[in-house]
Amino acid sequence: MNSPALKTALAYHEAWTGKDFERAMTYIADDIVCDAPAGRIEGADAYRAFMGPFVGMLVRAEIIAAFGDDDTAVLMYDTETVPVKRAPGAECVTVENGKITYSRFIFDRAPFEAARRAAT
Amino acid sequence: MNSPALKTALAYHEAWTGKDFERAMTYIADDIVCDAPAGRIEGADAYRAFMGPFVGMLVRAEIIAAFGDDDTAVLMYDTETVPVKRAPGAECVTVENGKITYSRFIFDRAPFEAARRAAT
Repeated sequence: MNSPALKTALAYHEAWTGKDFERAMTYIADDIVCDAPAGRIEGADAYRAFMGPFVGMLVRAEIIAAFGDDDTAVLMYDTETVPVKRAPGAECVTVENGKITYSRFIFDRAPFEAARRAAT
Repeated sequence: MNSPALKTALAYHEAWTGKDFERAMTYIADDIVCDAPAGRIEGADAYRAFMGPFVGMLVRAEIIAAFGDDDTAVLMYDTETVPVKRAPGAECVTVENGKITYSRFIFDRAPFEAARRAAT
């Protein structure tokens, strides 16, 4: 593991997929900017409000690929969630001083929207 | 560039984002398996039918991150398409003998479905 950014990204990933969301948040910078499918999320409080509910419905996760260099890491992973059985995601994060300051987050919202429609 | 897989992944990416889809297809194995948001795509013909229309509506693309090792590469990129202005994607590909044999492909279908609904 010679990528400091990947080390942080994996520690963050291990924490939230292990349902230790408070530990996960220790890797998130106070002024994080996250470009997610629904738009830009700014600040740790907004990030918590975005990510917390997802962690709450997580069943399991499995890493597909993990790469990084000094300040950037990319993770791709599969997740199983309560509403959606197969919900893979990809994150490209910028890490500064052991904290994630920027995250580009990609996943498919379509099955989550379909599950929401089916539930109402 | 010391990752043979990334070299192939970038050559493929450069070809399709440059609208040279036939050259792009030369990097796709005949028996490619692609796990895409809508499900599994098997074989180069099916992959062509999946990817061709997307290339047709591509306006521009920009790489966000690119990493790889001997046989695996991950690309994350932003695209602008005719129906959807900001449509980022991520691919994790397995490369054998200079051809992509497996692709895990993540993007958000939600804005494409919304554009389709708005058009009808």
